[in-house]
Amino acid sequence: MSLFPRLRRDRRLVEAALRRYLPAAGSVPLTVRRAMAYSLFPGGKRLRPILSIAACRALGGAAIEMIHTYSLIHDDLPALDNDDLRRGRATSHRVFGEAMAILAGDALLTHAFEIAASYPAHQKLAARKVRAIRLLARAAGVNGMIGGQVLDLEAEGRPYSYGTLLRIHRGKTGALISAAVQIGGIMAGGSHADVRSLRAFGDSVGLAFQIIDDILDREGTTHRLGKTIGKDARARKATFPALLGIDESRRRAREAARRATRSISDLGTRGRPLGELAHFIIERVS
Amino acid sequence: MSLFPRLRRDRRLVEAALRRYLPAAGSVPLTVRRAMAYSLFPGGKRLRPILSIAACRALGGAAIEMIHTYSLIHDDLPALDNDDLRRGRATSHRVFGEAMAILAGDALLTHAFEIAASYPAHQKLAARKVRAIRLLARAAGVNGMIGGQVLDLEAEGRPYSYGTLLRIHRGKTGALISAAVQIGGIMAGGSHADVRSLRAFGDSVGLAFQIIDDILDREGTTHRLGKTIGKDARARKATFPALLGIDESRRRAREAARRATRSISDLGTRGRPLGELAHFIIERVS
Repeated sequence: MSLFPRLRRDRRLVEAALRRYLPAAGSVPLTVRRAMAYSLFPGGKRLRPILSIAACRALGGAAIEMIHTYSLIHDDLPALDNDDLRRGRATSHRVFGEAMAILAGDALLTHAFEIAASYPAHQKLAARKVRAIRLLARAAGVNGMIGGQVLDLEAEGRPYSYGTLLRIHRGKTGALISAAVQIGGIMAGGSHADVRSLRAFGDSVGLAFQIIDDILDREGTTHRLGKTIGKDARARKATFPALLGIDESRRRAREAARRATRSISDLGTRGRPLGELAHFIIERVS
Repeated sequence: MSLFPRLRRDRRLVEAALRRYLPAAGSVPLTVRRAMAYSLFPGGKRLRPILSIAACRALGGAAIEMIHTYSLIHDDLPALDNDDLRRGRATSHRVFGEAMAILAGDALLTHAFEIAASYPAHQKLAARKVRAIRLLARAAGVNGMIGGQVLDLEAEGRPYSYGTLLRIHRGKTGALISAAVQIGGIMAGGSHADVRSLRAFGDSVGLAFQIIDDILDREGTTHRLGKTIGKDARARKATFPALLGIDESRRRAREAARRATRSISDLGTRGRPLGELAHFIIERVS
């Protein structure tokens, strides 16, 4: 069988995943495990999981990252955060001018949906794709990311409650993180219950991520993070440390990460990499 | 059978379309026409055509208009065309401020894809929807509308050729008009040949529309058109009358409209309303 290089790589990923998610030796009767492995390996073309991975790569990977990036470009514009530095480089409008930065953001957002609808071009995935595109648009739209952005804009310089802060961050960062996790599940053909678990995981892990982000904005250095630091406080933006203090913020981030891990307990060993991700988010220093 | 009010309206639309598109009396043997009508009316629930109409309304209707509107909001921004007047009213950023206008545009673009993926929520339409969403994103993106916008931005104040002008307008306005026509065909379950005809029609009719638009920008009054007039010339924008003169522009618009009508000759009577549309575009005065 001849496969393109990328497909061959994906196939190796599938093989590794199959070995990893086979019940651990000793956890099940030896013979049945051996019989399971006997039929799983060497196996066939692995077409279905390769399709799944391709779908996750296009939709959950490239499309989401393009939407995230467009939101950063537009957020940095003079009319919004008016920022000069992003990921250690000059922001888009500083390099290409405002007009082109607006269009580049629009183009990335639009392209995300083109990719989501185009790859992989397999008729059988159409229903899953439609579901994933709907979720993606909802997470990125007025009820998600843009909604949070609007609330944030309106809350600037005003007193705010913990509830408002949660709503802002759930929209601004949480929605897209949660969508990313759910889309992986949808495109892989997960059940509705699976996707519900992934959603709960995504919501909690998104919150943990944002609290840590706020703490880093306070404590980090501009050099290390590659973006302008301390500007949340200067702009009197709604942040967790400003409202709760650093220690209490840290405690809530850990609590959210624990909640995340609990919500995927139903997925069993299939959820293991997600658990590791939750841990990584809490431990990150930049 | 109980139907929601909108569905009842759609059903009436379907009944009217069926009567209209039945072969004209006298054009076919009387008995076969009578037998055809006998079975067509009163007919059943008309579920399939109602679904088709709902799909066209969501995708070809609301979604496309939202994308068109977002592009106007962003085009009017100070960094781009810096316009104060649109459809007889103050532009979005004049009313809501620049930040909110940027976000509103982003939100409309995103919402267009949410709608496209959400309605009608019928599994059987998933494959058509994915195809339509891909087409919509492509038409609105860097190879379509945004691409034309970028070319236009770069051509401003420079000498330009007829080829450049065509490329600009094909992107800026033609792509979305053509997509609108094709999406109708896709969601209605048209064949690939049908959609190809619709594409040719859409491309030509889009060109005719843009030429007339350029002429109106020269000859119209701000009051009548509800947008700032004569600004193309002031901004030294690439336009058809500037390059070819009014008379030659008019001739080319008529020629494009004729080409449009020819390209749907294969659709027979099904293409009649489109032919009328092409005629309307040529005759419009505002």
